[in-house]
Amino acid sequence: MTEAFRPQARAPKGFLDKRADDLAAERRIVDAVSAVYERYGFEPLATGGFEYADTLGKFLPDADRPNEGVFALQDDDEQWMALRYDLTAPLARFVAQNWETLPKPFRRYAIGSVWRNEKPGPGRDREFIQCDADTVGSARPEADAEIIAMAVEGFAAAGLPAADYVLKINSRKLLNGLLTSAGADDPAQKLGVLRAVDKLDRLGVDGVRLLLGAGRKDESGAFTRGAGLTTAAIDAVIAFVEAGGAGRSATLDRLSNVIGGSTEGDEGVEELSKIAAALAGLGVSEDHAVFEPSVVRGLEYYTGAVFEAELLAETLDERGQKVRFGSVGGGGRYDDLVARFTGQPVPATGFSFGVSRLAAALKAAGRAEAFRARGPVVIIAFDAEGMADYFAMAAELRAAGVAAEVYLGQSGMKAQMRYADRRLSPAAVIVGGDERAAGQVTIKDLDLGRVLAAGVSDNQSWRGERPGQVTVRRDELVATIQRILEAAR
Amino acid sequence: MTEAFRPQARAPKGFLDKRADDLAAERRIVDAVSAVYERYGFEPLATGGFEYADTLGKFLPDADRPNEGVFALQDDDEQWMALRYDLTAPLARFVAQNWETLPKPFRRYAIGSVWRNEKPGPGRDREFIQCDADTVGSARPEADAEIIAMAVEGFAAAGLPAADYVLKINSRKLLNGLLTSAGADDPAQKLGVLRAVDKLDRLGVDGVRLLLGAGRKDESGAFTRGAGLTTAAIDAVIAFVEAGGAGRSATLDRLSNVIGGSTEGDEGVEELSKIAAALAGLGVSEDHAVFEPSVVRGLEYYTGAVFEAELLAETLDERGQKVRFGSVGGGGRYDDLVARFTGQPVPATGFSFGVSRLAAALKAAGRAEAFRARGPVVIIAFDAEGMADYFAMAAELRAAGVAAEVYLGQSGMKAQMRYADRRLSPAAVIVGGDERAAGQVTIKDLDLGRVLAAGVSDNQSWRGERPGQVTVRRDELVATIQRILEAAR
Repeated sequence: MTEAFRPQARAPKGFLDKRADDLAAERRIVDAVSAVYERYGFEPLATGGFEYADTLGKFLPDADRPNEGVFALQDDDEQWMALRYDLTAPLARFVAQNWETLPKPFRRYAIGSVWRNEKPGPGRDREFIQCDADTVGSARPEADAEIIAMAVEGFAAAGLPAADYVLKINSRKLLNGLLTSAGADDPAQKLGVLRAVDKLDRLGVDGVRLLLGAGRKDESGAFTRGAGLTTAAIDAVIAFVEAGGAGRSATLDRLSNVIGGSTEGDEGVEELSKIAAALAGLGVSEDHAVFEPSVVRGLEYYTGAVFEAELLAETLDERGQKVRFGSVGGGGRYDDLVARFTGQPVPATGFSFGVSRLAAALKAAGRAEAFRARGPVVIIAFDAEGMADYFAMAAELRAAGVAAEVYLGQSGMKAQMRYADRRLSPAAVIVGGDERAAGQVTIKDLDLGRVLAAGVSDNQSWRGERPGQVTVRRDELVATIQRILEAAR
Repeated sequence: MTEAFRPQARAPKGFLDKRADDLAAERRIVDAVSAVYERYGFEPLATGGFEYADTLGKFLPDADRPNEGVFALQDDDEQWMALRYDLTAPLARFVAQNWETLPKPFRRYAIGSVWRNEKPGPGRDREFIQCDADTVGSARPEADAEIIAMAVEGFAAAGLPAADYVLKINSRKLLNGLLTSAGADDPAQKLGVLRAVDKLDRLGVDGVRLLLGAGRKDESGAFTRGAGLTTAAIDAVIAFVEAGGAGRSATLDRLSNVIGGSTEGDEGVEELSKIAAALAGLGVSEDHAVFEPSVVRGLEYYTGAVFEAELLAETLDERGQKVRFGSVGGGGRYDDLVARFTGQPVPATGFSFGVSRLAAALKAAGRAEAFRARGPVVIIAFDAEGMADYFAMAAELRAAGVAAEVYLGQSGMKAQMRYADRRLSPAAVIVGGDERAAGQVTIKDLDLGRVLAAGVSDNQSWRGERPGQVTVRRDELVATIQRILEAAR
């Protein structure tokens, strides 16, 4: 070979290589959540990775290269295309394109990668998997309630403990109504109020009060201008964001006291009470779906109910402080997305699970062991004469549903046993000349070896029932392996 | 809303929207084939969609925009990235990057989208799903045999009839050896020979003879220059490509007669006979894995055994002519891919199923009905008082594992029944004031309605056993629906 250019073997930043354990956790979530979506009558839809840039809306090509936030390139016909950054924009395009022929309401779920051209960092990848469900063509608050119920069921089906998750529900109409009543309905001011409320967790009530009023100076001395509300309006907003924390119907009562009077606010309360009734009918627990007026969930885009899926499990941050895992998904009602194409508003509501974040959460919740990928039974390549029978043994095990392989490298016994251990194999099968002559096979119980190596306290008693190595008749191979697998469960 | 820019709702060409039926077929294949790969001890690996362009090898950035065949763009740091066009190049990069820490041989499978920036056409998409298995780090022909066995089992597991598929096996070393013996080992001449052999199906033996020799004029008068072999060499090549068609060991005998003598040719025959022995051990039928010397499978890249997965089922082409479905996957041994990065050759062999083509094949093989997506039970939204109980009924059905939904649009009874029919729902549930007062539910058997509408001949007798509509006690809802689903199977 001539001295050629050798590229360095590395992947672009923000794009992950995932091995068996990570993929097992993701697959578990995707399978569980899709099964929930299907039980609710949602049908699957997959769209292509690319959409025309104008389809993606906020990323219109207004520069030479509209690469802000998305991965974009020009097609042969000079049109800009971009990889989807979520599954909702492609849904809106699909619905606008096929509206006449779709069953209505159109209930679809989608699972797929999305791409964001952002600065990558820990927990911030540029490619990740989302798992969405949306109902398009229903203005009924009950459609929102179903989305909420599916999210709650999805958490449980994915294997999270009941105490670890909650779906927080709010309506964009409540705060809008409140601000209108308070005479603060300038769009920029509204945005300022949403931004202030969104900081409640971090700054507390006093900090939010400052941001709702004149403004706030932080520890570094930097000043953030406030939304400029009157004191009465600030009091109303604070009373509103503090109205949560009770059961759904008690929170609704408090909210209707605080909101009082504005048309949009009353609409919001009315919608939430219909959602509450449907949630009761669907049997969704008060612990898992709560009304929480402090939830903001994105600044534009949503037009009614909003949902935030939060994990309550605590993890340690980089400074060793306990922090809540936080948001792993969310959604809400968006009635204007299809109108971008057709001019006709179409009511829609939906929810998106962040599969990769949820997988990380399952691991943090101590479920990592459940996703440890087990290796196959390894049949040691002891000698050349044995190969045909080694393959026959592998075939017999596979036919019985047991993952198995013949070692196919060039190394000796010791390296082969290390290979089996590295693959987390439950057992290794050895047939040399003696075994072959006697019509026997030797089977090593590798799980037992790992237990002994880990120093489990009662290994003496276990050893009594489970010898580390047995030699059995060749025709007892499959049954013996199955007993070892049974014991390993 | 002001008169805003309205993008046209359309997807870029070559990127498909897939609905429930298509996705069911793809999922069936992916699940079945992954299960086979796992039984053989292969572990899953997923890499990111993007790789640096230099990783993809033949698409090195030598122009301003290296967009030939791939979707490429520049990252923030000016490095060119491209979406992967197959799953092998990312595997080579991953292996080169992680070689020290991997179990060896490294057996991995991968499922994912790949992207090709080519002119789209019927059956030629720019994004499609591949499902690959590769063994890296084993030079043993038995590793090739396993790949072949998995491909054959994958076809069966995916649901193809036994008579419909075959895996054709050849070795690049055979023809190389033959040409070396014949004194024709100039690389350009070899390529010309491979190209000629690859046209056997289309041009027949006489046409190939011309292309191996001086050249061939086609019907339009256009002349293709030939490989310029001597008559003796042409005879040897033709004898070689015609050596197939017998059982594996008979074909091997014929091949070793034809190839005779050259080192590389003898190596090829020796490897194929080891593959044959392992296939026998693995129990792979002679009908499903055959040695076929006329298989070319790509022009560069492969260094030893090559595999071509062919569907024998016939479909009609655009002119109504019967044609074989053809290739739905393939692979082979490639020992130089990792060396591109490290300089160290690493032996590797693998196979790739084209999932989308295989899904199309399953449909063509008359299996479409199996993937017809069933809709949920639809609970008619008859009146507002009923809503809470409609949701409770849906929840009860879902808890019993039955897909169900409450109709959430605004339309009346008739449109709701049409909706249920469009979703291919097995049943609709109706509870109005009378039913509610009597503690009853009315259930319509919609499958029966579809059977009657389709005019099935014995519908009289079926009708006797299966009334189109029943009214039962509210607490008999779930059991009654389950009986209807049972009957529909």
